[in-house]
Amino acid sequence: MNNIYFTVGPTQTHPKLGEYLNEGLEKGIYSISHRGKQFGELFTHTVSSLKTLLNIPPDFHVFFIGSATEGMELILENCVENKSFHFVNGAFSKRFFQTAQGLRKSPEKHEAPADEGFDMHKASIPADAELVCLTQNETSTGVKIDMPDIRALRLKHPDKLFAIDVVSSTPYATVDYDAVDCSFFSVQKGFGMPSGLGVLIVNDKCIKKSEKLHAKGINIGSFHNFPALLKSAGKNQTPETPNTMAIYVLGRICDSYIKYGLEKIRTDTDLKAKLLYAFLDNNPRYPAFVKKEPWRSKTVIVAETPEGSAPVLKRLADNGFIVGAGYGEFKDTHIRIGNFPMHKVSDVKEILNILK
Amino acid sequence: MNNIYFTVGPTQTHPKLGEYLNEGLEKGIYSISHRGKQFGELFTHTVSSLKTLLNIPPDFHVFFIGSATEGMELILENCVENKSFHFVNGAFSKRFFQTAQGLRKSPEKHEAPADEGFDMHKASIPADAELVCLTQNETSTGVKIDMPDIRALRLKHPDKLFAIDVVSSTPYATVDYDAVDCSFFSVQKGFGMPSGLGVLIVNDKCIKKSEKLHAKGINIGSFHNFPALLKSAGKNQTPETPNTMAIYVLGRICDSYIKYGLEKIRTDTDLKAKLLYAFLDNNPRYPAFVKKEPWRSKTVIVAETPEGSAPVLKRLADNGFIVGAGYGEFKDTHIRIGNFPMHKVSDVKEILNILK
Repeated sequence: MNNIYFTVGPTQTHPKLGEYLNEGLEKGIYSISHRGKQFGELFTHTVSSLKTLLNIPPDFHVFFIGSATEGMELILENCVENKSFHFVNGAFSKRFFQTAQGLRKSPEKHEAPADEGFDMHKASIPADAELVCLTQNETSTGVKIDMPDIRALRLKHPDKLFAIDVVSSTPYATVDYDAVDCSFFSVQKGFGMPSGLGVLIVNDKCIKKSEKLHAKGINIGSFHNFPALLKSAGKNQTPETPNTMAIYVLGRICDSYIKYGLEKIRTDTDLKAKLLYAFLDNNPRYPAFVKKEPWRSKTVIVAETPEGSAPVLKRLADNGFIVGAGYGEFKDTHIRIGNFPMHKVSDVKEILNILK
Repeated sequence: MNNIYFTVGPTQTHPKLGEYLNEGLEKGIYSISHRGKQFGELFTHTVSSLKTLLNIPPDFHVFFIGSATEGMELILENCVENKSFHFVNGAFSKRFFQTAQGLRKSPEKHEAPADEGFDMHKASIPADAELVCLTQNETSTGVKIDMPDIRALRLKHPDKLFAIDVVSSTPYATVDYDAVDCSFFSVQKGFGMPSGLGVLIVNDKCIKKSEKLHAKGINIGSFHNFPALLKSAGKNQTPETPNTMAIYVLGRICDSYIKYGLEKIRTDTDLKAKLLYAFLDNNPRYPAFVKKEPWRSKTVIVAETPEGSAPVLKRLADNGFIVGAGYGEFKDTHIRIGNFPMHKVSDVKEILNILK
């Protein structure tokens, strides 16, 4: 029996992954030059398919990088001279903040408990903060931030750049590109792909900021700084030899999502999330970690496990379902369930049946 | 008819690539957690297999990164406060130098013409240079540097760190780890893999230097700085979610190379290189770009094409063989032929037959 992965990423792969991987091999795509016409067409197709699927405005640039973690580094290097401001309520929002520290910036933060979202207007964002960093979907705890809240904050701070981490909510999340200047995600979650590719989406305000920093003699990185990524993207290329296989497969999966319909993916996701939270709310053995509905992520569902996470994980694994342990300090007390387009309603019901 | 790629990377893929990719899928490797036991075993296996194949001393660390280009950035960020010194005779040695400039270091260089190697003792390396950067095999022009020359230089400068780019010569090149502190390569050349993974091999002197720079408040990068990579490697992990698929396949291909025997791979490579250069030396239509034997790369063979590169490339392509155009300024006047373990003697003979 093959396991079914309901982890939060890497997770269950797209059902057609094998077909797409072999198709790329058959077509010789893993041998082609990253400076040639065939690669340019492949690059163009994937960018165009991503823009269609995610409704990315034409004036935003799509860059391919190694991981979402690299995305944090690049955004901070290219958009911040001194100060970024971070909303922190979990491991990944903390990583964003700590990355700024590591890069010798002077970040500040507004914190919330791990099981809560933010009352955003309570945050005092310093006047000299250049970039506001938001983890729209906190993969470590399953807390989300709603787009209208981000938009309201943006309207209060029109002078600042806004960056959002949508690593574990893409393609489900509807990103309001009027309210954000850059966003990033990786492909091993909502796209059901092997890990090893990150996607960074930035507007011209970010590019201009990076050029300004560079002109001031500030280190904005080398091959993956925004001007270098933009220059290559203008030729339908990447600065380095990229993960061509992943760029190809991502295009194929985007096509399949477009064909199925993103609204239908969202409806499916909502249905599965509803089933999961309803179960947790009715089973004291597995209380939902996030108590308030507006903060509950639809794509990362976290349950407390008073009996410890290990026996729960084992019970599910014995039945062929792999779900995630809690993250970091919650390793032994939480389970995390991914809810992505590859995950079937029937399997969710089966999981709940096992847990019951 | 499927094309056979004799390009210099990405190039012809390993004959078992399809089998290994599907095996990884079957085993669920693209779904596993990068923080779990199974990933740790996979990581350990690939590192161990690489160390065996390439005869890497036990005290060197193996790090997985996104590309060789990233390797240049990381080495410069982590090993250089102000000054690196570069031997430059082609596009990739120039990229290494320019990466240092981009990172706001103050590099210096010793240059040689594109078709020549270096008379190393003629280079005046400044006393304050912290790192000497050498492109052991210049992929743009097919010029190599011999290890004993690097060793002799190192003995003259025992106070400096030495970094070598072995991107297009691994696994053929015998790296003298007494003479170098770090080296790097990518997998889409001598390993016949899809691009998207770089390998960085560093010793403790490099780690110590990066820690020293960090302690001084210098930006050494964030998630992929040497201390971060080392900390994760100590747990058989990577800082970010990595290209697990590529790490897995690399281990499998290393195993196959070990089984076949690296010495046999080297003998095969020498034989194919001899055939190619003998042909070029006897055919004025395709003179070898590099005239002197000691400078001639065995893995990247470059020919001048007085008739222009386009008709030559077409003639070969019409017969199912894809070779590389010249790099950069040599695009229209050179062809470049890769000579890697996947390339068969019989196909080399066929190529020469077509060219004749």
